[in-house]
Amino acid sequence: MAALPDPGPPLAPTRPRIVIVGAGFGGLSAAQALGNAAADVVLVDRDNYHLFQPLLYQVATAGLSPSDIAAPIRAIVGRYDNITVLLGAIERIDTVRRVAYMGKRPIPYDFLILATGARHAYFGHDEWERFAPGLKRIEDATEIRRRILLAFERAECADDEDERRRLMNFVVVGGGPTGVEMAGAMAELSRRALARDFQRIDPRAARIVLVEAGPRILPTFPETLSHDGRRQLERLGVEIRTGAPVTAVDGEGVVAGDERIDARTVIWAAGVAASPAAKWIGADHDRAGRVKVNPDLSVPGHPEIFVIGDTALALDVEGKPLPGVAPVAKQQGHYVARLIGSRLRGQPIGAFRYRNYGNLATIGRKAAVADFGWIRLRGLVAWLIWTVAHIYYLIGFRNRVMVALDWVWAYFTFQRGARLITERER
Amino acid sequence: MAALPDPGPPLAPTRPRIVIVGAGFGGLSAAQALGNAAADVVLVDRDNYHLFQPLLYQVATAGLSPSDIAAPIRAIVGRYDNITVLLGAIERIDTVRRVAYMGKRPIPYDFLILATGARHAYFGHDEWERFAPGLKRIEDATEIRRRILLAFERAECADDEDERRRLMNFVVVGGGPTGVEMAGAMAELSRRALARDFQRIDPRAARIVLVEAGPRILPTFPETLSHDGRRQLERLGVEIRTGAPVTAVDGEGVVAGDERIDARTVIWAAGVAASPAAKWIGADHDRAGRVKVNPDLSVPGHPEIFVIGDTALALDVEGKPLPGVAPVAKQQGHYVARLIGSRLRGQPIGAFRYRNYGNLATIGRKAAVADFGWIRLRGLVAWLIWTVAHIYYLIGFRNRVMVALDWVWAYFTFQRGARLITERER
Repeated sequence: MAALPDPGPPLAPTRPRIVIVGAGFGGLSAAQALGNAAADVVLVDRDNYHLFQPLLYQVATAGLSPSDIAAPIRAIVGRYDNITVLLGAIERIDTVRRVAYMGKRPIPYDFLILATGARHAYFGHDEWERFAPGLKRIEDATEIRRRILLAFERAECADDEDERRRLMNFVVVGGGPTGVEMAGAMAELSRRALARDFQRIDPRAARIVLVEAGPRILPTFPETLSHDGRRQLERLGVEIRTGAPVTAVDGEGVVAGDERIDARTVIWAAGVAASPAAKWIGADHDRAGRVKVNPDLSVPGHPEIFVIGDTALALDVEGKPLPGVAPVAKQQGHYVARLIGSRLRGQPIGAFRYRNYGNLATIGRKAAVADFGWIRLRGLVAWLIWTVAHIYYLIGFRNRVMVALDWVWAYFTFQRGARLITERER
Repeated sequence: MAALPDPGPPLAPTRPRIVIVGAGFGGLSAAQALGNAAADVVLVDRDNYHLFQPLLYQVATAGLSPSDIAAPIRAIVGRYDNITVLLGAIERIDTVRRVAYMGKRPIPYDFLILATGARHAYFGHDEWERFAPGLKRIEDATEIRRRILLAFERAECADDEDERRRLMNFVVVGGGPTGVEMAGAMAELSRRALARDFQRIDPRAARIVLVEAGPRILPTFPETLSHDGRRQLERLGVEIRTGAPVTAVDGEGVVAGDERIDARTVIWAAGVAASPAAKWIGADHDRAGRVKVNPDLSVPGHPEIFVIGDTALALDVEGKPLPGVAPVAKQQGHYVARLIGSRLRGQPIGAFRYRNYGNLATIGRKAAVADFGWIRLRGLVAWLIWTVAHIYYLIGFRNRVMVALDWVWAYFTFQRGARLITERER
């Protein structure tokens, strides 16, 4: 038989181009759901890695290394031929021509998914940031780790008794999960890992004060679990001040409620503000900068633009804003990917609905609280669930194994492996 | 029987005070050998960790994390009650009053051990440092890692063909063990770990050029092993230029011999200069700043001051300078500790003699050279010995396990776990 003539490559139908900004939980889950779809996907992030933010406090307290909780974006989505990864920051968006700009480089889109996350906010007091760094990025975590470890080193050398006391006082502002986790981890660092390392100071005498403006810590949890969390934290030696809004922060400490607390090290875990995505697209937003989105997470007037994760103000069925947590962002990313696919096929799907599988906050070794709605847990059981869940959700086999080993090692030795003071003073 | 009256604490004999500056291989081994001795030991370092420098190139090429090869000094010597650890930099030394100064803080000594190591040197061209960072500290390694990974990211985005080529060219200056290890690891990073991660560039096409001024690479090894090393490197795809001294370095590349090599990323592994210890004590030194020491490693005219490791110019039995490698520093630290103990007991010991157990340099996966004097090895066997030796000498059980696991993982997957671009542009 004679060979048929080569028909040449098939005519390419116009493939829609989907640009995703941000490779956090939301953006990455959207990208993964669009892997191998009949669309060209461009994933833009200013970092080359996806960061597992829920464990960032462990980097800040020397329990884990940055590379344990970060995975290169290219390594995660490298298997999908239709995804292009770009390293860079989006600076503006032309919603009329449908072009995002990374510097001067135009990135045209048919669909745009904004998943740019949030930064910490100082309620109009940006000058507090120098004294009280927040915890959102790897550089924040290594900076906080540097400050905490240096405070003990300086206390060991200090000749002045007042200065030594200020150096051994630590204040964490904000009683949400991040603040609680930071305070608990700092207590364990000072009571356990550093306990015998110094000659002139006793790190176990370090004072760790958790300050919360509202009436209770862990306000998104049921009141009984708030109470349990407080008791578990106090057992670790953390002092808790509730109903104590912070009105001043400087290099010497904070004013919380009507009390002045001297402390050389202050950590900010009190407020977040969305990234400037709302400004880029000129969209309606709330005071924290979150874009008010439609029930399908698209932007009013722009059915081709979606906002997800901490950058979005999405409402649950009762009309309450969804919390800024990883599961919300992941489910939203997955939903938007599915929605775009359906729309391209002309099959509409219903509004986004968040499925809450439970809230967890860890406090320390064998101490945590867990709220699954139908059951509330505390102590060892909650802590084991927290541990397994976090290892399970970590991306990449290697990171899972490394973190698991670090934790097993820390559990038995009480030591912390990543006690490095790196980088110079900011 | 009536109890004897309490005799009170025994009269404390005057305990000598030994100050060790630097907690690298030399200083740390001296401190450990003096642990629990009848002397007060003060160990001063500007970092809070001991760094396992021979593996620093693996941090620079994203194979290991900083915390894998660094261990907190306090955790290492914490078990010795007679050792005080101070974090800070010595700025001057009063050899008449026998006081070292950490800033304004005086640290008096009876014996002083200077083990402050070396920095890279640019042969009078300090302006090259910006363009061609060296590899001595953790911050150097994360900076080099940042530059290498960013070069590929920028090449992926580059529209100009010349610029893309410059971004994909890498030059390593210096053909000693560090340069060889860097070039080999960069070849493996580009040929293996990154191979499939990009869409517009092929990282396997990256050009890695190793430039050496002398006639052969690995000049401290026997000529046959130099030759083997060269062949193994070339098999990995590294281009080697020998007899090519570097006469210019700028942001666009280097001039080596009579050739201009365009490259956005240049790594400096060519020369070292001792720390300024010689200046502190006004001692005689060579051009690289190394203090000329007596056969017992003391400073001429100062029997109470010892200089060890890369800061010392010590001679072997044939009158040749000892190389700046970890085993020399460790043996010297141990020797000086023993010497001080003997002197206090009035029992003199002989001059320092270096016992060379062999030289190793790794080139890449299953590629290395080893010279044990009585036998010379290359390839897989040398590489296995190198691997086992480096794990064995790593300090701390945890680091050993973590590095071993990282290596096993990398061996089977060809991936590199620490591919993070952190910190901002310097």
